[in-house]
Amino acid sequence: MKNTVLMTKTQIQVRFSDVDSMGVVWHGQYIKYLEDGREDFGNKFNINYLDFHKRGILIPIVKIVCDYKRPLVYGDTATVETRFINCEAAKIQYEYAIYNNKNHDLIATGSSTQVFLNLNHELMLGFPRFFIEWKEKHGLLEEVNKFNLS
Amino acid sequence: MKNTVLMTKTQIQVRFSDVDSMGVVWHGQYIKYLEDGREDFGNKFNINYLDFHKRGILIPIVKIVCDYKRPLVYGDTATVETRFINCEAAKIQYEYAIYNNKNHDLIATGSSTQVFLNLNHELMLGFPRFFIEWKEKHGLLEEVNKFNLS
Amino acid sequence: MKNTVLMTKTQIQVRFSDVDSMGVVWHGQYIKYLEDGREDFGNKFNINYLDFHKRGILIPIVKIVCDYKRPLVYGDTATVETRFINCEAAKIQYEYAIYNNKNHDLIATGSSTQVFLNLNHELMLGFPRFFIEWKEKHGLLEEVNKFNLS
Amino acid sequence: MKNTVLMTKTQIQVRFSDVDSMGVVWHGQYIKYLEDGREDFGNKFNINYLDFHKRGILIPIVKIVCDYKRPLVYGDTATVETRFINCEAAKIQYEYAIYNNKNHDLIATGSSTQVFLNLNHELMLGFPRFFIEWKEKHGLLEEVNKFNLS
Repeated sequence: MKNTVLMTKTQIQVRFSDVDSMGVVWHGQYIKYLEDGREDFGNKFNINYLDFHKRGILIPIVKIVCDYKRPLVYGDTATVETRFINCEAAKIQYEYAIYNNKNHDLIATGSSTQVFLNLNHELMLGFPRFFIEWKEKHGLLEEVNKFNLS
Repeated sequence: MKNTVLMTKTQIQVRFSDVDSMGVVWHGQYIKYLEDGREDFGNKFNINYLDFHKRGILIPIVKIVCDYKRPLVYGDTATVETRFINCEAAKIQYEYAIYNNKNHDLIATGSSTQVFLNLNHELMLGFPRFFIEWKEKHGLLEEVNKFNLS
Repeated sequence: MKNTVLMTKTQIQVRFSDVDSMGVVWHGQYIKYLEDGREDFGNKFNINYLDFHKRGILIPIVKIVCDYKRPLVYGDTATVETRFINCEAAKIQYEYAIYNNKNHDLIATGSSTQVFLNLNHELMLGFPRFFIEWKEKHGLLEEVNKFNLS
Repeated sequence: MKNTVLMTKTQIQVRFSDVDSMGVVWHGQYIKYLEDGREDFGNKFNINYLDFHKRGILIPIVKIVCDYKRPLVYGDTATVETRFINCEAAKIQYEYAIYNNKNHDLIATGSSTQVFLNLNHELMLGFPRFFIEWKEKHGLLEEVNKFNLS
């Protein structure tokens, strides 16, 4: 795969209701922060779930991983870095890193994997055409795959 | 209206993630507890949102009120009492009372109001036939309304 | 009471996870939007819960009301207007209005009431000195109350 | 390590508010289901976070993994199986499997890792005495570790 890196930086603000009784952001809340990053990426690069949905493709999450390094507390703001991982399988993969804006500490890392379903909810084993074209447009397609497209 | 009172008692258990940084259940969480009560009522009396939905009727919430009396803490279990309010307007109204199971303290009271929409999302100003029949079945219909039904 | 109106406008963005199976923002989610508005107000006017907490005062919510007028959908952005209500009781009251940024439709209105507790969790029946000084600073104090302060 | 397997089965009920606009339980909601399982295990085997907390030990989550196999929909009930993983590192590890009660389909698997912090929030590299005793009581301690304990 080529070296183009697509990445967004998304600002998040810790809500009072994000914080648990230990005084830190509840670990499950980070799944929303990852989604904030992924949605922001999708909006910027025109590859959000609605872009797929209007082409008859669903992109459910099939795997989430989150590693917690340091806590966030009420009042903190943070940056979610969302990187598109250009994998060869028929999947959409992102990696995430969350940094505290105050001191640039790494707060958490994570990853998500999505697959393609048609509207009958059947797994699509190949890349949807829309996704191949999207990859090509962003310089993420290998020569061999470009050949297959034509 | 007649004196029949339809009521359910629903058990809830405070989750760790329900509790905020003050060590008590976050006030917004109670909206889920009210919904737990309402869904339980709907399932028991066959009047949940799916019962309406399959007849082409949506029943969105248009008003929520919650009064907080005492806190709940992690580990508490509580009982939500959900009472159907037999109002004359084309609305579904419930009143709720939440009690701590430990000491029967009143924790909160609340109410919800739902209206009827058709599938074009237009407000239905009259009672849907299904709802009139449901009221009749449960002895909640005045004589005058029974007359209108026939 | 005097006519000064303290108000903030807070931007919110509908998350995918805010939306329910009817395709609209779940009604309970609005409690977070009201809190977003209230926190923003508190940060701007130095009257958030931490400002009280460091003076030994807790300000729990004792009442929430929300009236739902129109739905919000995924992708919408909205503005929460939060107004401080200058009431004479020993309470903090806010009123809220949420507008869709797309068409300025009124989406919902709401209100919240908070009381003052000391660190023994006992209700404070009078105004905390910090709150009286805050009101005076913002031109919200009647002459008679100013007199009492001195 | 020895072959004793500690496991709990926890019932969960899909709430209306758990379901997203695709009509299935939102993927982030599963983190609460895993926590439901973990709390239930902790209550049954006296190893929940309060059991540690009263001994001056915090047990924050440092890693969550969730693999999504099949969707859950509104009205479904499911069973969370929570298994204690008897690892040699100074960590608490659980593995989870969620089954749909309707057809026993495997819905999701997951794992969580927690570490031990003292009240200064410093990582404890060895096993807390309470945890060693707990392991011994449940037949999870190797002979070599029993020796160290004495």
